[in-house]
Amino acid sequence: MSELIERLRDGLPPEAVLTDPDVLGSYAHDMASFCEAGTPAVVVLPRTVEQVQHVMRTATALRVPVVPQGARTGLSGAANATDGCIVLSLVKMDRILRIDPVDRIAVVEPGVVNAHLSRAVGELGLYYPPDPSSWEQCTIGGNIGTASGGLCCVKYGVTAEYVLGLDVVLADGRLMSTGRRTAKGVAGYDLTRLFVGSEGSLGIVVRATLALRPQPPRQLVLAAEFSSTAAAGDAVCRIMAEGHAPALLELMDRTTLRAVNDLTRMGLPETTEALLLAGFDTPDPAADLAAVGKLCTAAGASQVVPAEDTAESELLLQARRSALVALEAVRGVTMIDDVCVPRSRLADMLQGVAAIADRHGLTIGVVAHAGDGNTHPTVCFDGRDPDEARRARASFDEIMALGLELGGTITGEHGVGVLKKEWMARELGPVAMELHRGIKQVFDPLGLLNPGKLF
Amino acid sequence: MSELIERLRDGLPPEAVLTDPDVLGSYAHDMASFCEAGTPAVVVLPRTVEQVQHVMRTATALRVPVVPQGARTGLSGAANATDGCIVLSLVKMDRILRIDPVDRIAVVEPGVVNAHLSRAVGELGLYYPPDPSSWEQCTIGGNIGTASGGLCCVKYGVTAEYVLGLDVVLADGRLMSTGRRTAKGVAGYDLTRLFVGSEGSLGIVVRATLALRPQPPRQLVLAAEFSSTAAAGDAVCRIMAEGHAPALLELMDRTTLRAVNDLTRMGLPETTEALLLAGFDTPDPAADLAAVGKLCTAAGASQVVPAEDTAESELLLQARRSALVALEAVRGVTMIDDVCVPRSRLADMLQGVAAIADRHGLTIGVVAHAGDGNTHPTVCFDGRDPDEARRARASFDEIMALGLELGGTITGEHGVGVLKKEWMARELGPVAMELHRGIKQVFDPLGLLNPGKLF
Repeated sequence: MSELIERLRDGLPPEAVLTDPDVLGSYAHDMASFCEAGTPAVVVLPRTVEQVQHVMRTATALRVPVVPQGARTGLSGAANATDGCIVLSLVKMDRILRIDPVDRIAVVEPGVVNAHLSRAVGELGLYYPPDPSSWEQCTIGGNIGTASGGLCCVKYGVTAEYVLGLDVVLADGRLMSTGRRTAKGVAGYDLTRLFVGSEGSLGIVVRATLALRPQPPRQLVLAAEFSSTAAAGDAVCRIMAEGHAPALLELMDRTTLRAVNDLTRMGLPETTEALLLAGFDTPDPAADLAAVGKLCTAAGASQVVPAEDTAESELLLQARRSALVALEAVRGVTMIDDVCVPRSRLADMLQGVAAIADRHGLTIGVVAHAGDGNTHPTVCFDGRDPDEARRARASFDEIMALGLELGGTITGEHGVGVLKKEWMARELGPVAMELHRGIKQVFDPLGLLNPGKLF
Repeated sequence: MSELIERLRDGLPPEAVLTDPDVLGSYAHDMASFCEAGTPAVVVLPRTVEQVQHVMRTATALRVPVVPQGARTGLSGAANATDGCIVLSLVKMDRILRIDPVDRIAVVEPGVVNAHLSRAVGELGLYYPPDPSSWEQCTIGGNIGTASGGLCCVKYGVTAEYVLGLDVVLADGRLMSTGRRTAKGVAGYDLTRLFVGSEGSLGIVVRATLALRPQPPRQLVLAAEFSSTAAAGDAVCRIMAEGHAPALLELMDRTTLRAVNDLTRMGLPETTEALLLAGFDTPDPAADLAAVGKLCTAAGASQVVPAEDTAESELLLQARRSALVALEAVRGVTMIDDVCVPRSRLADMLQGVAAIADRHGLTIGVVAHAGDGNTHPTVCFDGRDPDEARRARASFDEIMALGLELGGTITGEHGVGVLKKEWMARELGPVAMELHRGIKQVFDPLGLLNPGKLF
């Protein structure tokens, strides 16, 4: 038994230290394509803050890199192991410690599954908005690490806006609290927000105080069909410029609609170029749907179908939620991208992606959080065909470049991880990168926390 | 003419470099009490990014500290000059560069006055929520530096939530962009948020991209009278626990009500211990006021008076807005505090402050953003009476300690500046302070940016 394993076992129960090679392999990577992953030396599954501190003290003493993990549903390789690392999985720290309806906060451990928290607060008439597609699996700690988004963001914002305070174990094992449990607070630098989206590179989140909202009414959804992505983009612009506040505003292109039909036999319209879904959880959603329906028609929609009730609305959302699985079934493998552009440039982004698909002879389906301008061009390819895989990889860089050219960002909600390191440097520029490295050095002078990610 | 002035003049027009001693004195401090202020060597008023870069390059070359300033309406001494410093006033950089209703953003220079921006976006049907009391004077750059709040925060959040991206001139004069102009974006550490609330200690904000919202309907306001602060606090808890979303939820205690009457002859009820104002900008505000009125009555309100229309509502808000001026008139000088506690502890905070006032024989009026638990205990004293001033100063520390004891923060929205340096260290603890100093060192290795603030 190596010194590392021996010292880890000194402060962890036997079942919390995994060394079986098959098990290690299963913790090697998240769900991203095209991202290298190494083999960890050990996987640890602490259940307490003290155990996390023990892991970090051991890692620091022996200079072993640590890769923190939630449910490994990430899409940019941020949770991928490096050779010889400690994989620090937080999934066993899964307690909801408190839900307070007056202060509208929840205090949770990092391993709490997003859907568990959402349901628990829902039972008290409260709402935790962030809803990544993987919400049934992904953990709050992972959501914080990647600053993840979801369908609700167009109205309710992203994870970052719901993180009030954190307890963090630093690289050397010291415990620190940041932020607050009050509605407001401005004492010092916003370290809380600095940890959100830092992909485990600055410290290990072991507890989070989250802001909650009152539960809104259940939403009603409208579907609008467009014969061009330009018209759909125009409808999005009109809806947002007119001051509407949809709780979701999603787009699926024709490739996606066909894939969903093939998988689910839902009978979505296949001759349309783009389907827009607009949802409202307002006091009078039918009135909002009527107003938005008119704007869609004015923008050129060929069909506008408001759902009659929440059951019909739920069906439309199921179609949207099944999009990625459906696209995966098209050619076996997908590479999901995540470029966010100003919503006024959404149509340009969609047209640009179509041109890239044509040029490379690829199938690229696009689903988009259209209200946010956040597109997920999803390249469908056969992983066994090296040439197709090569073309898929090439299209990735062109999609990034297009996003930046349109005034957007290389990642709206999936993060940088391994996948987009070079592109992050391109987006941020040398001065910001120098400051990033300086901050990293302050928090993690030995460079042990999730090395090779972000930078 | 000193070398400093000479080199500054090399890159600035003559009218942008002020050295008249009387003028220098008028730029020495913001509106905080009990905060030391030095005499600047020079005041510069750049109009362009390049001029700001020139100022910072000169300061770095000659190792001269720089104190950035907006309208100097701050309440914690964060804009106070130090002896021999360059005061860098951003008030001449006051252009609104862009307002985009589709992308719902505004791009502004730091010297834009909050009210000017609010009105300009309002004309386009848009809304920039942050509304500090000083909104007719204070600048967006100052709001960003202090992460300021206002009345609207209970529904719309604080300044930080509206800052999407920044252009910043660093200590050495280099220009950096952070953040984005898209609705979402997670590329790298959240440097944007790190600058918000950093009180000019990390860099000079020279341009900001701000998020806007659709303009809500004009609000209707209800006034509820309570014979105890405990009952008023209970009403706040009920309102928030029941899932209401007031656009403001403000409290004035008896001392404040009397002061407002003395100043304005408004005829507010003086026998009541606390007046609660609840405002709604929802589609059916009258219905919301009725529901909230019932909750107030259940909590023990002796009177509940919903405004009939927006004009009546505006009168009630005027009473609230005149509170600080009215309290100033009571004994000549005020020390406005800014402690935020969990809203469930609001009543405890109000009672604790009353006990502190009694113990020290002081008049302390409390106005509070009650929905946020953000209290402004305002000590009214005669500045010419050394003993009274001493007691006022003593009560300050007790109010801070009480806030922390109740699980709150020493500053909800006014910032740390000079006034609360020691208390910030107490709230954050030694580990967080060490990280703060590390971050400061990364951005400002020579320690030239607003020295003596925060730390």
